[in-house]
Amino acid sequence: MVKAGIIGATGYAGGELVRILSKHKDAEIKWYGSRSYIGQKYADVYKNMFQIVDGECMDDNMEELASQVDVIFTATPQGLCASLVSEEILSKTKIIDLSADFRLKDVNVYEEWYKIEHKAPQFIEEAVYGLCEINREEVKKARLVANPGCYTTCSILTAYPLAKEGLIDMSTLIIDAKSGTSGAGRGAKLPNLFCEVNENIKAYGVASHRHTPEIEEQLGYAAGEKVLLSFTPHLVPMNRGILATEYASLKKNVSWDEVKAVYDKYYADEKFIRVLGKDECPETKWVEGSNYVDIGFKIDPRTNRIIMMGAIDNLVKGAAGQAVQNMNLMFGLDECEGLDLVPMFP
Amino acid sequence: MVKAGIIGATGYAGGELVRILSKHKDAEIKWYGSRSYIGQKYADVYKNMFQIVDGECMDDNMEELASQVDVIFTATPQGLCASLVSEEILSKTKIIDLSADFRLKDVNVYEEWYKIEHKAPQFIEEAVYGLCEINREEVKKARLVANPGCYTTCSILTAYPLAKEGLIDMSTLIIDAKSGTSGAGRGAKLPNLFCEVNENIKAYGVASHRHTPEIEEQLGYAAGEKVLLSFTPHLVPMNRGILATEYASLKKNVSWDEVKAVYDKYYADEKFIRVLGKDECPETKWVEGSNYVDIGFKIDPRTNRIIMMGAIDNLVKGAAGQAVQNMNLMFGLDECEGLDLVPMFP
Amino acid sequence: MVKAGIIGATGYAGGELVRILSKHKDAEIKWYGSRSYIGQKYADVYKNMFQIVDGECMDDNMEELASQVDVIFTATPQGLCASLVSEEILSKTKIIDLSADFRLKDVNVYEEWYKIEHKAPQFIEEAVYGLCEINREEVKKARLVANPGCYTTCSILTAYPLAKEGLIDMSTLIIDAKSGTSGAGRGAKLPNLFCEVNENIKAYGVASHRHTPEIEEQLGYAAGEKVLLSFTPHLVPMNRGILATEYASLKKNVSWDEVKAVYDKYYADEKFIRVLGKDECPETKWVEGSNYVDIGFKIDPRTNRIIMMGAIDNLVKGAAGQAVQNMNLMFGLDECEGLDLVPMFP
Amino acid sequence: MVKAGIIGATGYAGGELVRILSKHKDAEIKWYGSRSYIGQKYADVYKNMFQIVDGECMDDNMEELASQVDVIFTATPQGLCASLVSEEILSKTKIIDLSADFRLKDVNVYEEWYKIEHKAPQFIEEAVYGLCEINREEVKKARLVANPGCYTTCSILTAYPLAKEGLIDMSTLIIDAKSGTSGAGRGAKLPNLFCEVNENIKAYGVASHRHTPEIEEQLGYAAGEKVLLSFTPHLVPMNRGILATEYASLKKNVSWDEVKAVYDKYYADEKFIRVLGKDECPETKWVEGSNYVDIGFKIDPRTNRIIMMGAIDNLVKGAAGQAVQNMNLMFGLDECEGLDLVPMFP
Repeated sequence: MVKAGIIGATGYAGGELVRILSKHKDAEIKWYGSRSYIGQKYADVYKNMFQIVDGECMDDNMEELASQVDVIFTATPQGLCASLVSEEILSKTKIIDLSADFRLKDVNVYEEWYKIEHKAPQFIEEAVYGLCEINREEVKKARLVANPGCYTTCSILTAYPLAKEGLIDMSTLIIDAKSGTSGAGRGAKLPNLFCEVNENIKAYGVASHRHTPEIEEQLGYAAGEKVLLSFTPHLVPMNRGILATEYASLKKNVSWDEVKAVYDKYYADEKFIRVLGKDECPETKWVEGSNYVDIGFKIDPRTNRIIMMGAIDNLVKGAAGQAVQNMNLMFGLDECEGLDLVPMFP
Repeated sequence: MVKAGIIGATGYAGGELVRILSKHKDAEIKWYGSRSYIGQKYADVYKNMFQIVDGECMDDNMEELASQVDVIFTATPQGLCASLVSEEILSKTKIIDLSADFRLKDVNVYEEWYKIEHKAPQFIEEAVYGLCEINREEVKKARLVANPGCYTTCSILTAYPLAKEGLIDMSTLIIDAKSGTSGAGRGAKLPNLFCEVNENIKAYGVASHRHTPEIEEQLGYAAGEKVLLSFTPHLVPMNRGILATEYASLKKNVSWDEVKAVYDKYYADEKFIRVLGKDECPETKWVEGSNYVDIGFKIDPRTNRIIMMGAIDNLVKGAAGQAVQNMNLMFGLDECEGLDLVPMFP
Repeated sequence: MVKAGIIGATGYAGGELVRILSKHKDAEIKWYGSRSYIGQKYADVYKNMFQIVDGECMDDNMEELASQVDVIFTATPQGLCASLVSEEILSKTKIIDLSADFRLKDVNVYEEWYKIEHKAPQFIEEAVYGLCEINREEVKKARLVANPGCYTTCSILTAYPLAKEGLIDMSTLIIDAKSGTSGAGRGAKLPNLFCEVNENIKAYGVASHRHTPEIEEQLGYAAGEKVLLSFTPHLVPMNRGILATEYASLKKNVSWDEVKAVYDKYYADEKFIRVLGKDECPETKWVEGSNYVDIGFKIDPRTNRIIMMGAIDNLVKGAAGQAVQNMNLMFGLDECEGLDLVPMFP
Repeated sequence: MVKAGIIGATGYAGGELVRILSKHKDAEIKWYGSRSYIGQKYADVYKNMFQIVDGECMDDNMEELASQVDVIFTATPQGLCASLVSEEILSKTKIIDLSADFRLKDVNVYEEWYKIEHKAPQFIEEAVYGLCEINREEVKKARLVANPGCYTTCSILTAYPLAKEGLIDMSTLIIDAKSGTSGAGRGAKLPNLFCEVNENIKAYGVASHRHTPEIEEQLGYAAGEKVLLSFTPHLVPMNRGILATEYASLKKNVSWDEVKAVYDKYYADEKFIRVLGKDECPETKWVEGSNYVDIGFKIDPRTNRIIMMGAIDNLVKGAAGQAVQNMNLMFGLDECEGLDLVPMFP
């Protein structure tokens, strides 16, 4: 039984970790870390967990935690994990960091986009970018996994095979992404009030969103070239779900079947990636509550572009589900354990 | 392995049965009945089930079905199950009817409220009202179970212990219920369009909703007297969830703890009923996707009334989840098998 | 031209006042009071007003304000208006208070339900309860109007004619009300976040909501007796709208037409009250954005109860619209000026 | 007083025409055409109009209508207006067609994208494309106006000045648009049910949506070259609103101020177009219920792209509001009459 601790257990991603781990056969939560609710019953913060979770919220003591658990999930704001991690801690326990602290290999890029100093750059090299479908073998051996961002997971996986196989002109790649509001977190902020979000849609962080360099770095590895792209997130009046609509010019004349074959080459055996049939567009509702990525695409001969679309549940494959998938890999468990979640419709 | 067939597998309740049964360890679906989609892949109708369900939709042939499966779920409009059931069929298979055909013991009441002739009144007596927490032993022995309605399940369970123990004046009972829109079914009707439901709330079926006599009959058994009550359903702009707010005059002076003790007497050991703490009001989101009933109550000394509140997911405990719970009881399985669903929040 | 000042212009009710007054032919806003946004352009706080409103937010200086404007609207938390009002101010300007400070005639009741000391009890007697359809003549002469609460307006107007005419047993009156989320204000609080409200419904303030004594007092005047009733508010995932479903036992045998005649006696000439036809239930969407109150009712001979339903837009007839209606009366303007708003559907 | 007739008065765009015209000082509706509801009171179909509109729904008799009214609005499916219009009718009355029948100058393009034969190609040349801000003078003289589509209005106006001034490379233009569900009409179709749309987002009509050639034609006129672009519509869980996010490569190095000056050159005097300040992104909620177009943009030096964003209310500026604006121009009225609508927030 893998003993797990969560720092940031009362955010939405933390809550989703608790939902998933509470049914995991080979793991158990030993520590519900939440600085804001220390001493309160976890089920008083998330009342859906009444009679399911019995624990209390505890402080963020990573050293103490490291001595008690096999793996620590940090579902915390940027900078916290980097400020707490140390060789001693990593010698005792594994860490899966849901923040951005170890996602970018270039510390300067991190500091430029996140506007904070990186407190533990010495672990950046070691950290494995935890996109399981791409870095599976590295994840298995990792002590420290950088769990990808929600927009990032969706954006990368949607375009990855085409980038890898050189089908698309990377300099033309544009990602227009739409996210449910849980992606904005559980902080009590005016822009996230019901009345501000409901019956509304807007773009935000245009040409400046922090997930941009992460997508560029990973797709750059795939394409074997430096990639600069446009990424525009939008806030949608729904709780969960990310849809990424991606545009790129094709480098050669290809048919739908040929592109499908390229996707299949990378994803046919992936349990959590479903490439849809011809003329089908993914919908976020079809993956809600599950760890699936649904991908569809359309070739537009008029403009010589391909339009790729990917959909995930931002809290599952975009956060907690992927974190558990990483944990499973790191501890030699069945990769799908705890993630056998059927999407809920409607 | 219990072999199950579903008639009406492409309605919302049918879809939820598929979601739940697809992960049930001791049951498998052998027949996806859907007259509207015969020959189409089930996963083309509900694309959330892509790569999860492989079957095709089939016709509603109950005789053929009876020879192939151990249990038939009828998630169909009123009248269909009664028109198809026969002694021969019941001698071969069990039936769990999610429609209202066998819920009311008085056929005249049925015909008056539903405005249709009952085609199989000879089975009304035998049919067991499948509210597991109340009729568990009868359900275990039943061939034909009348699965309770969604409003009904929530309304009855919320008041049952107090009716049973004579704490409330049944002639004062008023049930004001609010339902998500999936309760209206998947038929393409104008009042259920997004733009008609969103940003809107209304009452409907006032003093005439068909679930009224069902609630009256069952609470009448509990109270040991004939009950007439007011029941008002409302349509709420959300997919899932029912909240019942129930008002009744108290017959004697009781404290919160005394009433809590009455609830506990009946529900303390019930896995799927959670009686909340003092001053807590249930919220539908806390049970979404799960088989739970959350119940809270408040005593108002100013008016000598008690206000009871119950919340369920109308598609789970109010339909498919309860049907599976009934199936588990009928086949001697663990009552909770397949229903170990953690509510999803947010 | 009536010169108006608003204290609390950046709350939702204050914003609605700005929306309505910006098109009022005989009034103009001279002061956008908002302590939180002093010095900022009003249209930077509410960007819907870009190029429509040019003013800046100013402090809450009621004395200065009194010397500049003919009427002050206080759309502020409880207690603020009472703490600022004085004889000197009232000698210079009229006040329409959208808070509860002057709604209750018994200061003890106020202090008990609102848990704050009343700072200006000397003006309670003088203040007129600004439910225009009931107190029109008093409003015309008032210096200080207590603008009714949103739940209150809807609850009272729905039952008023029947209370007044003695048709219903006031001791049986139960009001189950449902409100959109703008009623909770624009404060950045966790329970009002999109993800907490969306796909969710709950009761709150059960048997303890502050609007209860206000409804009791006003319906008590109508009925000519002391009234105690049950009032239960619910939070609904929509921006605007209140629906009140009200239950009472009938004191005598009446037909639908007879009850309709009673409503018509009081409301036939009221521009803003629409009594619907037989078997019609009001929907909040049908009044959205307008100053209408839609009322429907159903008699239930089985239980000898009448179920009355009323719908308003909580920010218009439940707050800003009614405040402008009061202003129009106080200044001898056309009562409907500025309120000629057609409900928006969908 | 301009006498107006509406064919298709009970669709969402028709309903919005009624809402706007009911308050228009210089126009009155003489004919509520609705084949589906002939003989029913209009206010029984749209109950928000109870006690506001007194008329009955009538058949679609364009000849009879032409003899009674000064202008006919056709808010009908593609093909209907073209099948009814004739020289005789146009000699008696003006027509504002909200369908696509006369929007495209090339009848072959129309027939290819709409898959129907055009029944009145002889009027295509005469018809004026009713985008008032661009074709104002032509509209004033027109007998037959082709009212632009909702996506189209938003997409064109957002990019028009930059296309006109040659700032952007038209071959790189990508429009990713998001629409509320009222754009899908009031037909009772499964994909538009509340439960299918709510908590969901999807693209549709990818690389094949019918508004594509309309946008290409109009932006082609502006740019002075043939334009082929990518246009991807998305369905968003909200009633109203369209947001268009548009990407294009810049042809030269320009600052935000320079681009702003280009927008101002065309729009500074336009009452209904609001170009936002630096770093501001439009939100659909800020224009809801109004005839405004809100436009913002951001220059991304990393990719040398400009990201332009436009927001409208699809039923107002995207349909009925623009139609009334056209009517005002055609009849020499104040262009803004009836359109002085303040956006409703929240």
